[in-house]
Amino acid sequence: MKPYGPIPDWWTAERLAALLPMADAGTPLFVYDLGQVETKIAYLRNSLPGIVSIHYAMKANPFAPLLSAMVGQVDGVDVASGGELAAAIAAGATHISFAGPGKTDAELEQAIIAGVTLNLESEGEAGRALHIAARLGVTPKLAVRVNPPFALKGSGMKMGGAASPFGVDADRAAALVRRLIDAGADWRGLHIFAGSQSLDGDAVAEAQAATVTLAAEIAEAVGVTPPLVNLGGGFGIPYFAGDRALDVAAIGARLGETLANRPAILRETRFALELGRWLVGEVGIYFTRVIDRKESRGETFLVVDGGLHHQLAASGNFGTVVRRNYPVAVVGGEGALETVSVVGALCTPLDRLADQVQLPRADVGDVIAIFMAGAYGATASPTAFLGHTPAREILIGQ
Amino acid sequence: MKPYGPIPDWWTAERLAALLPMADAGTPLFVYDLGQVETKIAYLRNSLPGIVSIHYAMKANPFAPLLSAMVGQVDGVDVASGGELAAAIAAGATHISFAGPGKTDAELEQAIIAGVTLNLESEGEAGRALHIAARLGVTPKLAVRVNPPFALKGSGMKMGGAASPFGVDADRAAALVRRLIDAGADWRGLHIFAGSQSLDGDAVAEAQAATVTLAAEIAEAVGVTPPLVNLGGGFGIPYFAGDRALDVAAIGARLGETLANRPAILRETRFALELGRWLVGEVGIYFTRVIDRKESRGETFLVVDGGLHHQLAASGNFGTVVRRNYPVAVVGGEGALETVSVVGALCTPLDRLADQVQLPRADVGDVIAIFMAGAYGATASPTAFLGHTPAREILIGQ
Repeated sequence: MKPYGPIPDWWTAERLAALLPMADAGTPLFVYDLGQVETKIAYLRNSLPGIVSIHYAMKANPFAPLLSAMVGQVDGVDVASGGELAAAIAAGATHISFAGPGKTDAELEQAIIAGVTLNLESEGEAGRALHIAARLGVTPKLAVRVNPPFALKGSGMKMGGAASPFGVDADRAAALVRRLIDAGADWRGLHIFAGSQSLDGDAVAEAQAATVTLAAEIAEAVGVTPPLVNLGGGFGIPYFAGDRALDVAAIGARLGETLANRPAILRETRFALELGRWLVGEVGIYFTRVIDRKESRGETFLVVDGGLHHQLAASGNFGTVVRRNYPVAVVGGEGALETVSVVGALCTPLDRLADQVQLPRADVGDVIAIFMAGAYGATASPTAFLGHTPAREILIGQ
Repeated sequence: MKPYGPIPDWWTAERLAALLPMADAGTPLFVYDLGQVETKIAYLRNSLPGIVSIHYAMKANPFAPLLSAMVGQVDGVDVASGGELAAAIAAGATHISFAGPGKTDAELEQAIIAGVTLNLESEGEAGRALHIAARLGVTPKLAVRVNPPFALKGSGMKMGGAASPFGVDADRAAALVRRLIDAGADWRGLHIFAGSQSLDGDAVAEAQAATVTLAAEIAEAVGVTPPLVNLGGGFGIPYFAGDRALDVAAIGARLGETLANRPAILRETRFALELGRWLVGEVGIYFTRVIDRKESRGETFLVVDGGLHHQLAASGNFGTVVRRNYPVAVVGGEGALETVSVVGALCTPLDRLADQVQLPRADVGDVIAIFMAGAYGATASPTAFLGHTPAREILIGQ
């Protein structure tokens, strides 16, 4: 028997049962609860200093109805491609920034024409953006992404403290900002991202403090106040057994202290947190129906109609070294527990959604819920693999 | 500096250069060389006993022009979903078998109506198939997939010797076959798959011998000769430094001995190898163009317009524990070598196509080739992730 991660409190058995008719209309199915997103955003706003904006990193979940709803809830949308940019505009977003190490000339042009802030990832990209803007006769909105000399401790993906494809090294940032200003660009500020998916609140707070210090040093070297400093994100969510939710109120309080004592050059600066996973990861559920129940060598398998083509991360095949179980439940399940593995419909041993977990007995036709499915699920999975049908997606709580 | 895998002999610098105009018409781009597929199939046929058929496991690469061409080259197509079944029929396939642990009732009905052989994965699936066939008034073609008590040694994915979602345990296979025959089904034989991606020729030969022995034991228990025994696949290809190609001629010779001495109950049986990766993996190249060249903390990064959304396996994020480099080249590159990392356009640290490899200098606009891209590339990757454009695919050598 192996453990699985904690099921978020609000997904009570009653709430799950109430969603069953949606699953009965067709599985596999993602359900995202907008009400919970709003609750999280309200809690976050209440925790943060007023000078800190909340941006949504739409890469976490670009489902159009969700994105449209998010636009009305957050202060900005961060995009990572021309495709996401077009989707953000279609969703009504007006405050958009665009980061990503491989922006093509076509994407730079698209962003400059749309009046979007480009988070520049290198001197070369800066040169291309300035060239394109000059050709178009437009003043580009340009920020500089900085590769910080520190990493966010305990993060699932470190994005600082080492050689990186993201941003320019901190010691070259001031020179690049100066070049942008001298070229007549509208310098929008700095973007500093030290890591993602951390559950260590102290580490997040320390990274934020170090980020503010670094931003001030760069601003001092330039001699100009940045309009915005994007502090990155890094807020993790508890996927696995033993994980505990971040204390966001404590992080907000410490960020308040940090900003109250910020260097004078940042006095007129606004700040932003760029969050994706933390905003939407926990509010999503993936429902998949049991097609077969079988025994093999004393083990029980529940074969479901979904799989890693929708939930790659839950199968342990995306950015994780050791496979661990996401939280899982049998909808409406009750009674004695048994040890089972939940495997997907794909004809590959990689397709395992829950490994040797204890669940109430489930039979063919029952619905399994995989939690923490709101971020990096539907679009971060190989949807075309093996020619299965796509998952449905529904937004509730509107 | 880290090593990368061996570039297949036939991808000479001249042949790569000749493909540049295709890349110039748009990257990212997959190119598949049908001529090389034909060469491989001819070599394989020449190596195998005449009694052994070659099946194509289309999950490896379902690109429609390639699939249509394969139909004319192989003796059967193996599908893993209703979507693949429809594609195989559209490509003109007439000998089709369908394996996969999560077949829905709709897929079973589709297959039975199409006259396709179903490789049954469990007693429960057998019951559903028989029930559907009775309702339709059709005699179903049914084979039994067996979970063997042995695994293919050295394989990338073991599929035997343990509890498994695939097939029925060997000690229950005879009873299931008997049930199918008694129910009036057209029993097509056995499907026994012990693993995949092995580069150990001895292990492949031993697994084939054990498979023939197991098939005979099951047939003896039933008292009926199976029309076909699908021996599975398992033929690996050399992705990484130090990997050596399988000696397929030696495997074929040993399979010839095994079959020459097969038990009497299999005297009238045909055999099949089911191959995907080995047939098409080496014949594909992924071309991606350098968008940016940047330095960070003394390391050089080539940022390209492709990434893990097309080449998840090459990024080390699909079924591998330790990230290693696929073979890689700068098309037209020459001169002194430098150490660089090739990273994709996606805004995630996971998107690394080659880590600290030695390549001739490449600049913005140059084209990078990632080899071994013909199998589990375009469809086994999260194509929608971050909203980038899909890769183009081209079949050459027709």
